[in-house]
Amino acid sequence: MFEGLFGERVSDRAWLAALLAAEQALAIALSKAWVIPREAAAEIARHCSADGFDPAEIGRLAVKSGNPVVALVRQLTAKVPDESAQYVHFGATSQDIMDTAAALIAKDAVSSILSDVTAAAGHCARLADEHRDTVMIGRTLMQHAVPTSFGLKCAGWLVALDEATANLRQVKLEAQLGGAVGTLAFVDIPQVVTFYAGELGLAEPKIPWHTNRTRFAELACALGVLAGVFGKIAQDVTLLAQTEVGEVAESSGGGSSTMPHKQNPVRSVLITAAVKQIPGLVSTMLAAMPQEHERAAGSWHAEWETLNSLFSLTRGAAARLADLLGGLRVDKDRMRANVDMTDGLVMAEAVVSALAKEIGRAKAGDLICELTKSGKPFRQALIDAPGINWSEEDVDRALDPAKYLGCSADFIDRALGR
Amino acid sequence: MFEGLFGERVSDRAWLAALLAAEQALAIALSKAWVIPREAAAEIARHCSADGFDPAEIGRLAVKSGNPVVALVRQLTAKVPDESAQYVHFGATSQDIMDTAAALIAKDAVSSILSDVTAAAGHCARLADEHRDTVMIGRTLMQHAVPTSFGLKCAGWLVALDEATANLRQVKLEAQLGGAVGTLAFVDIPQVVTFYAGELGLAEPKIPWHTNRTRFAELACALGVLAGVFGKIAQDVTLLAQTEVGEVAESSGGGSSTMPHKQNPVRSVLITAAVKQIPGLVSTMLAAMPQEHERAAGSWHAEWETLNSLFSLTRGAAARLADLLGGLRVDKDRMRANVDMTDGLVMAEAVVSALAKEIGRAKAGDLICELTKSGKPFRQALIDAPGINWSEEDVDRALDPAKYLGCSADFIDRALGR
Amino acid sequence: MFEGLFGERVSDRAWLAALLAAEQALAIALSKAWVIPREAAAEIARHCSADGFDPAEIGRLAVKSGNPVVALVRQLTAKVPDESAQYVHFGATSQDIMDTAAALIAKDAVSSILSDVTAAAGHCARLADEHRDTVMIGRTLMQHAVPTSFGLKCAGWLVALDEATANLRQVKLEAQLGGAVGTLAFVDIPQVVTFYAGELGLAEPKIPWHTNRTRFAELACALGVLAGVFGKIAQDVTLLAQTEVGEVAESSGGGSSTMPHKQNPVRSVLITAAVKQIPGLVSTMLAAMPQEHERAAGSWHAEWETLNSLFSLTRGAAARLADLLGGLRVDKDRMRANVDMTDGLVMAEAVVSALAKEIGRAKAGDLICELTKSGKPFRQALIDAPGINWSEEDVDRALDPAKYLGCSADFIDRALGR
Amino acid sequence: MFEGLFGERVSDRAWLAALLAAEQALAIALSKAWVIPREAAAEIARHCSADGFDPAEIGRLAVKSGNPVVALVRQLTAKVPDESAQYVHFGATSQDIMDTAAALIAKDAVSSILSDVTAAAGHCARLADEHRDTVMIGRTLMQHAVPTSFGLKCAGWLVALDEATANLRQVKLEAQLGGAVGTLAFVDIPQVVTFYAGELGLAEPKIPWHTNRTRFAELACALGVLAGVFGKIAQDVTLLAQTEVGEVAESSGGGSSTMPHKQNPVRSVLITAAVKQIPGLVSTMLAAMPQEHERAAGSWHAEWETLNSLFSLTRGAAARLADLLGGLRVDKDRMRANVDMTDGLVMAEAVVSALAKEIGRAKAGDLICELTKSGKPFRQALIDAPGINWSEEDVDRALDPAKYLGCSADFIDRALGR
Repeated sequence: MFEGLFGERVSDRAWLAALLAAEQALAIALSKAWVIPREAAAEIARHCSADGFDPAEIGRLAVKSGNPVVALVRQLTAKVPDESAQYVHFGATSQDIMDTAAALIAKDAVSSILSDVTAAAGHCARLADEHRDTVMIGRTLMQHAVPTSFGLKCAGWLVALDEATANLRQVKLEAQLGGAVGTLAFVDIPQVVTFYAGELGLAEPKIPWHTNRTRFAELACALGVLAGVFGKIAQDVTLLAQTEVGEVAESSGGGSSTMPHKQNPVRSVLITAAVKQIPGLVSTMLAAMPQEHERAAGSWHAEWETLNSLFSLTRGAAARLADLLGGLRVDKDRMRANVDMTDGLVMAEAVVSALAKEIGRAKAGDLICELTKSGKPFRQALIDAPGINWSEEDVDRALDPAKYLGCSADFIDRALGR
Repeated sequence: MFEGLFGERVSDRAWLAALLAAEQALAIALSKAWVIPREAAAEIARHCSADGFDPAEIGRLAVKSGNPVVALVRQLTAKVPDESAQYVHFGATSQDIMDTAAALIAKDAVSSILSDVTAAAGHCARLADEHRDTVMIGRTLMQHAVPTSFGLKCAGWLVALDEATANLRQVKLEAQLGGAVGTLAFVDIPQVVTFYAGELGLAEPKIPWHTNRTRFAELACALGVLAGVFGKIAQDVTLLAQTEVGEVAESSGGGSSTMPHKQNPVRSVLITAAVKQIPGLVSTMLAAMPQEHERAAGSWHAEWETLNSLFSLTRGAAARLADLLGGLRVDKDRMRANVDMTDGLVMAEAVVSALAKEIGRAKAGDLICELTKSGKPFRQALIDAPGINWSEEDVDRALDPAKYLGCSADFIDRALGR
Repeated sequence: MFEGLFGERVSDRAWLAALLAAEQALAIALSKAWVIPREAAAEIARHCSADGFDPAEIGRLAVKSGNPVVALVRQLTAKVPDESAQYVHFGATSQDIMDTAAALIAKDAVSSILSDVTAAAGHCARLADEHRDTVMIGRTLMQHAVPTSFGLKCAGWLVALDEATANLRQVKLEAQLGGAVGTLAFVDIPQVVTFYAGELGLAEPKIPWHTNRTRFAELACALGVLAGVFGKIAQDVTLLAQTEVGEVAESSGGGSSTMPHKQNPVRSVLITAAVKQIPGLVSTMLAAMPQEHERAAGSWHAEWETLNSLFSLTRGAAARLADLLGGLRVDKDRMRANVDMTDGLVMAEAVVSALAKEIGRAKAGDLICELTKSGKPFRQALIDAPGINWSEEDVDRALDPAKYLGCSADFIDRALGR
Repeated sequence: MFEGLFGERVSDRAWLAALLAAEQALAIALSKAWVIPREAAAEIARHCSADGFDPAEIGRLAVKSGNPVVALVRQLTAKVPDESAQYVHFGATSQDIMDTAAALIAKDAVSSILSDVTAAAGHCARLADEHRDTVMIGRTLMQHAVPTSFGLKCAGWLVALDEATANLRQVKLEAQLGGAVGTLAFVDIPQVVTFYAGELGLAEPKIPWHTNRTRFAELACALGVLAGVFGKIAQDVTLLAQTEVGEVAESSGGGSSTMPHKQNPVRSVLITAAVKQIPGLVSTMLAAMPQEHERAAGSWHAEWETLNSLFSLTRGAAARLADLLGGLRVDKDRMRANVDMTDGLVMAEAVVSALAKEIGRAKAGDLICELTKSGKPFRQALIDAPGINWSEEDVDRALDPAKYLGCSADFIDRALGR
């Protein structure tokens, strides 16, 4: 709906172009294998341009056969001159063309997504580096825990994006060519598949995979995992941008005329909205995997719109994420102020850690636990505590959140690949 | 993709029209409650026609605020003459308009679906009645079990459609009006909601429901259950239409030029394809229910495309189901031939039942079990069996599947509401 | 895992008991219809106690037939004395017993869930009433918007619980009895179903529903919608309990020895954890609806563990929600302090509303918009504004959030059914 | 339910053992890095045996903190003698231990699944090889299409299993160690993570991944894809085992005393039942990915039972699949008889192919299309056709399905890796 909101859907025109690219590659591959004449292949290729076809009409005709290929082949055949016409779609089945077209469309979508994710990851890396010393409170179960750095948070986002991206890169997108039931009997020359895949820039399958849907299922899953990472980042931004937290803001908020203080994190909201739709779509792809015999009676057809939605939502969200991270505004002072909200109590663990070196962890733990319940401000309680012989300076050092970031810097370097 | 295949998606134009209907009803309701002048309401209403707006432009502008209402209101306000312009969208928040529009669209979709389902149910009723004596084999775990009638099968489809339809009819579609956070503070007159809902033909909510999503979740579920019934019927047809079974066929099969014997059950296949996409969409609606505070940061936005898909898929499948059932061809002879495939073994239970009246169920069971393993044709084995004193006529009566339909006729009458 | 965490799973023993209750009711119903002798029914009933059976052994044997009924019937038959033994499971199929047992278990689970939800709703009603004047900030997209009352928030929870509960109450749980393929041919007396259902306290089905799964699908959906409401409430509590927000707290937080300031909202977290698992389970129930012919080859069997999980998770979450709401601690002062965080800017809409009555909405809007950008504190800007002739008292009244709660009190009354 | 039916769930005891293995490894790793004394580590390790703990009690206590680790640590600490006790769980957070335990349990489950899948794939390979010349009908949309071989069908199963398995093998299972918020501040020595992971045989993470859930999401997806392949195979078997098809049977069918002809494909049914439950579970894992800040408030906790179910269902289905394929009975004669059901019409494409070499594809197609509609038996029509100058022998050769298997043998070799 209002497509701009979530990312453009793959258009019927794009599908037509991909279907025709498959028909063209088939003709060329067949001619390379001497199955059909070179001139026929050239003639067919000449007519494989989407401009000559009407997606709406193909759509209407598609209902009769349950897919758009039958109608498309009929129209293409009608365009190709006599002698060559008989070689259109030679030896192929509708699913060969549809699956191959889907692989082409997937390849395009994946490449576009990877490019935006690379940009987003770049912003994470920059933020991780810039903010390696920016102290902020770590939050567990939405409660203040102990300090961390904003750099480490961004490093976590980066690692997650890297892992999910590596996963997506591994998915093989294969050409499909098997004829009516996967034996390629009408063509009867396996090399045609090699030529066909090569022509299209797709991977060559081991054997036809009409009812082996692992590749598209893996693709859906890889998009699902990647989208989950998008969701993690968008949620963190939304939470950090809350009026009460105020640690980050999007570059330009969705404002409101009667609510001038509002800075809606619109990008994060729209990313979240897209991400929420994806697990259900992935489950559809998985549920559609058990496909009957040599061609499924419905489960195969259920993949098309599902893939379309997956591509559109992930693509839109990836672009928005790059934009969001590129313009993210970080309020270090607010971060520091929030660390101090509990008057040093978030440093209790750090104090135990320091004190443990002197009196053992057990004793240190018990002592500090008591002090935090004393009612006194924690700093004063530490200064006054009979069991602790620290100077005020010692106390302040123990209470300095910047001194309790542990391996944060080291982890950031690892995330940055240094 | 190739929309005709699964049913038209709700267009952006339809959304625009619904959004404007909500704005118009708001103006009229406000004027009825003397909050704004009658003339202003009339003036606003005059401009609330979708023709004056460009969905694509609204879509582009929608990205900034995360929904299309802000841009729409701005454009509508610009059209309405000076004095009245200030009363456009008076006291409402974007979500009031979006949710109300969604309810209007839902109402339209539900009404269209119910109409097709009523037709489909009518065909089931007719088939149930016509085929109350059409003997066919009952199949459990895809294996022949004991006889049933095709009429009872259709009665089962009918009851399922009736139950799922009753469920869908119960879903309340409510108008939404609460202002920025659901207090209706800017308007401050609760009667406006009554006028507003009345104007739109929607139910009046108890209170604003910005982050209470039970109504749309129930709607999604009701569509999900209904689609599950569609899937049951389509699957039965697909299975009965298998080449080896051949008991039913769609009115016109999706043929193939080089495979002249094929009669693809295309309608069933496309219904199945639609139905397979729905559980994932319903899960998205449920997962989107926990919405934050007074307006959600993403989960609300995740509903829109999901509802669109649910409406389009269910609507398309309902229409196709009515068409499928209206033209279903039933091959009684093949049904009868299939009953006889196992040479009477499917009548073993019936024979036990008959024999039990003479010698008790336990003995009858043991005896028949032995006979079926004897290697002899079952009929002959029964005639020859020393423990059974039946004439050939008795044996034939016991082996007559038409005599072992139990309460089938009675159940059909109950399904037909007689 | 560590069952206490999410609620007890329905035990195998409970299943055994329900299966045996079905067998017992069948025997009694058959005897009432004079199909089997009264003594046989009494004899069978005498042995239908779960104590005499070993769930683990039944489980092992169940693998052979794909369900536990075959093995159970064999063991039950062995226990019942000679003459009566032949009437065990008379005329029934395994699915009759399994589906009926599932309905019994469902009935029990629903009743327990409704009882806890009633308690939870009671707490919502109490909180709504108590806090009708407790001003808090309304939050949209996680940003401060305009004021609302905590009472209205609780009223929203209440209405959602009421709607979801009404939905759950409507689900019919029916007895199942149809014999091998749903014709009830072996028994051949439809009244047996009436007696059977009556005996069990379950609804009588129109006709056998072996492959019509609407009832369980509706049940799963009703639980899914209800769980969505739980999730909404738990999420609101988690967000309000954030260290930076601090407006509510659970009665006793999950503390931490080294992080003394932490008050983990453990109940909310565990409710959320349960709720997150439910949409996927509901989608499984819907995806399992298309069941083949007269008994499904896998989809039926897929329901059992899914229902078990749904019951256990919803039941556990309902109990925890009642506990959570019963002990919720509300910090009115913090609520009020948070309203004031933006120095009155959240009252801009209210000021426009008040001013509009004097100079029209358009002018009022423009003027206030300017003032909020003036850099001056909002209150002072209002006092100084040349276009506004308000006394300081007028200004303070316009800025009083308690005066801008709109229809909040009215809505609370509606939610409370007053 | 009746666990044997779908595969054992991971027991609480197994979880306890894994949690304790993590605590033990932590102690040893800390001692290797000189953070805690060797003797303390040895003392702790000595008590890390699951036998000393009561899962039920831990479960009850777990409710308070929302996970079992707090209670477990308390009990373990109480067992370890004085001086060493303070080093129990030193520097770790509950999630470090839970995530690591989950990784250990996952590793075990994956290894068991891979072993059964390897066996299943071995059976596919054997069947593919044995049946490379076993002609059967290829079926598309559940209708007879053109011939294929049973060997090629099995080769397709094999390739799918191989691809899904390769995918599963790639998932990295990492140890988790980051302390309260992922900075490892209390320990402050990154090498501890290296020792810890090494001790456990798990991969070392780049950085702590408390709220980066890509690994478990990838694992869930890999299991989901693998299960989809199981479902494909089980569905093919179920369909081929239909009474009307009868081409394969399970080694021992689930029989029925009163329906002696039944051979229920019980293994396939139970595999299908398990597989149907998995897409919903995967969607839960993906939906749980967006985890808040440094530790999630519910989404993390939602993973545990979901992973348990995924492991149990996939594990059970894998074992059953190996058993099913190991004992699969193949009826070649029935396969051949089914090919002939349409009196040669399924060879029309083959005849076109042969004839095309003589008169061109277009003419050949038109001619054969006409012949199939002539009403004459296809063989006779071919002999009589004026446009075809074939001898009866030529006709029989053209109609021989064994001669129209295309690249089937070649594809089988590729699948077998030859």
